[in-house]
Amino acid sequence: MTVEFICVGTEILLGNIVNTNAAYLAEKCAGLGLSCYFQTAVGDNEERLTMVLRTAMERSDIVILSGGLGPTEDDLTKEVAAKVCGKKLVLHEPSKKAIKRYFEEKGIEPTDNNWKQAMLPEDCIVLDNHNGTAPGVIMETKESKVILLPGPPGELCPMFEESVEPYLMGLTSQVICSQTVKICGVGESRVETMMKDLIDAQTNPTIATYAKTGEVHIRVTAAAEDKKAAMKLIKPVVKELKNRFGNDIYSTEQDVTLEKAVVDLLQANDLTVTCVESCTGGLLSARLINVPGVSEIYKSGVITYSNKAKRRFVGVKKTTLQKYGAVSGQTAEEMAKGAALLTKADVSVAVTGIAGPDGGTEEKPVGLVYIACNVKGKVTVKKFRFSGNRSKVRESAVSAALALMRGCILEYFSKVTFGKKNQNR
Amino acid sequence: MTVEFICVGTEILLGNIVNTNAAYLAEKCAGLGLSCYFQTAVGDNEERLTMVLRTAMERSDIVILSGGLGPTEDDLTKEVAAKVCGKKLVLHEPSKKAIKRYFEEKGIEPTDNNWKQAMLPEDCIVLDNHNGTAPGVIMETKESKVILLPGPPGELCPMFEESVEPYLMGLTSQVICSQTVKICGVGESRVETMMKDLIDAQTNPTIATYAKTGEVHIRVTAAAEDKKAAMKLIKPVVKELKNRFGNDIYSTEQDVTLEKAVVDLLQANDLTVTCVESCTGGLLSARLINVPGVSEIYKSGVITYSNKAKRRFVGVKKTTLQKYGAVSGQTAEEMAKGAALLTKADVSVAVTGIAGPDGGTEEKPVGLVYIACNVKGKVTVKKFRFSGNRSKVRESAVSAALALMRGCILEYFSKVTFGKKNQNR
Repeated sequence: MTVEFICVGTEILLGNIVNTNAAYLAEKCAGLGLSCYFQTAVGDNEERLTMVLRTAMERSDIVILSGGLGPTEDDLTKEVAAKVCGKKLVLHEPSKKAIKRYFEEKGIEPTDNNWKQAMLPEDCIVLDNHNGTAPGVIMETKESKVILLPGPPGELCPMFEESVEPYLMGLTSQVICSQTVKICGVGESRVETMMKDLIDAQTNPTIATYAKTGEVHIRVTAAAEDKKAAMKLIKPVVKELKNRFGNDIYSTEQDVTLEKAVVDLLQANDLTVTCVESCTGGLLSARLINVPGVSEIYKSGVITYSNKAKRRFVGVKKTTLQKYGAVSGQTAEEMAKGAALLTKADVSVAVTGIAGPDGGTEEKPVGLVYIACNVKGKVTVKKFRFSGNRSKVRESAVSAALALMRGCILEYFSKVTFGKKNQNR
Repeated sequence: MTVEFICVGTEILLGNIVNTNAAYLAEKCAGLGLSCYFQTAVGDNEERLTMVLRTAMERSDIVILSGGLGPTEDDLTKEVAAKVCGKKLVLHEPSKKAIKRYFEEKGIEPTDNNWKQAMLPEDCIVLDNHNGTAPGVIMETKESKVILLPGPPGELCPMFEESVEPYLMGLTSQVICSQTVKICGVGESRVETMMKDLIDAQTNPTIATYAKTGEVHIRVTAAAEDKKAAMKLIKPVVKELKNRFGNDIYSTEQDVTLEKAVVDLLQANDLTVTCVESCTGGLLSARLINVPGVSEIYKSGVITYSNKAKRRFVGVKKTTLQKYGAVSGQTAEEMAKGAALLTKADVSVAVTGIAGPDGGTEEKPVGLVYIACNVKGKVTVKKFRFSGNRSKVRESAVSAALALMRGCILEYFSKVTFGKKNQNR
């Protein structure tokens, strides 16, 4: 069964607000096994809303509209939708009472236009609004089901979960489940090449790759009569992906970020961690600290932006800075070792590089970054060359640092010979 | 002139990501005086994308597509758009070279599918991508202009500002100019109340407010026959806004961010700065360090996440932590003073709070944050209560810290009595 969304509101068209309702509805409906092929945003305009709604009803079984149910003149979603569905608006006494009660509780006098919200399409299903005055509406036509929801997320989300979700569950027989395989330290096109045969052969489950900064996510999605059957379809594909990408996969859980995976790995091995950052200037620590419960393993970190700070806080040698420069593998290594001494952390990561836009030279261009990871005295240094503007370079460096930390910790606790992963040194 | 957006990507339809590109493009195009009546999201599907694009080209002068320009199998926006516009794809040598260079710089071997991105529609305008491998494309048909942009915001936004904005400006006979008045430390509703009369009376120039984390931007946009005439319309409105919001305005320049404004203020007053962070864990330093040339004023900073680190690095007293707790005005003040001693910086900012989701109590709930700013020994401490999830709380704290720094520096160098802004202490 197919569903599509029409989000109504000039504020969306002007970019005053980000359309989070569409994402919310999309995720919810995907979870219910509904196929969504289109999302539209349109303004509070009768002609254009009519056009968009007609098109949607022609191509989708279910059309969910959000916004434009307010009491003001320019709120006309309900009026337009009723007209398109060939239904008259009639006074709905319970809604009128509810609106009356709502204002009494707030101790506010309702204005005349508030009663407009109690005028609902004839023989529709009314959805109570416990967080506002606009009731939701479901109209069933032979073409499709048309569902009207209020625009404010604080009203839309609870109404969807209380009333719409149960209604939709009653309509569909199949469920869609998906699992995401998250890879770090490998480029999207390489991932794509390594699994081209799987993508070419995909039917159900389907396989899609999503590039993130320093990561690639592979989503495996299956449709079946129930969750168990869907997961049974997904399992062998995920298993095959694990065979192909091995340790480069940091998680197959929807809610596990790369920083969460690194923090989990540190906690699982009873390791404390610290970061000493130059060009990333705190971004790496900030990402680790965005993981709840990180306090067990992250105690302190330093930002050594100037050469003096590199010497003073983490004891980088003056001669090292003179001979190799602040952006060098040698400096990164000394920073990492010094940070371990300073904080007594088991794992210390150092980042030094040229984020740009200025400061680049022939042999040390903008985007050149050295990252050193020290796991209980075993130091790995990697050289990177990132592209993009200052913030892109810094974000890429942070993701690379997390991937390197992960690799070094896994390596330390495995029997992998140390030299192996160190060749890029 | 009308514009509409088609955002391509299954991840949008599945609700895996919020469609921020649509909001970005909408805000930008509104600023250029283009009318946007429709936004659509569609998946990587030839038939449906063709249908949506044809409809858009029939009803809009300009159609901007984002996403689906990647090297992978399911990226087909360019192929479909070229077909709809009746153009063949031909190898674009400069793009091929650029892609080759991109991988050489990274020291990675490009895979075959990377060259797919160098195949571009015949006689199109090519938009360089300085942050990725997918070039942007402008195709001019007699129906409408079709613009293809990469999906990742880190690539789309710079490409829009560098190439698309100037192109769009060249299309319209009348000039649209806008100026943004950027306010920090004042809530959106208060800003709107303070200028309701201006918004109600707006015609040309138009006035729109945009809420950002910890900031409100007011965009004043005027249409006229030339830039001079447009700016003449804008000037008095901006002047009136300056009268109303005074020092809360940190900039009226498009490209000046709050952190840039703070760094400029520090540099203008020959002040060095440091940050000592607990719950924000490096995010504040990271934002300052995202400003090019910050090395003149930012030398070092510390992240003191544990109580021990607060004592050891910035000398917070054991008794203070015991009596008031780590999240208190007293601890924040001692952190700021200690950071000044440690780094010799003229300005030191300390942030300590409860970012959640756990750790909140009755009297110290999640979202409670204390920020202390020390300007040459004069310390101001402010208490905040932010809402939202962990990262929202941390981002809000960073913005509030920047606003507080700015206020304290202005105060220090003005004749404003010190007690005044200190009442929330």
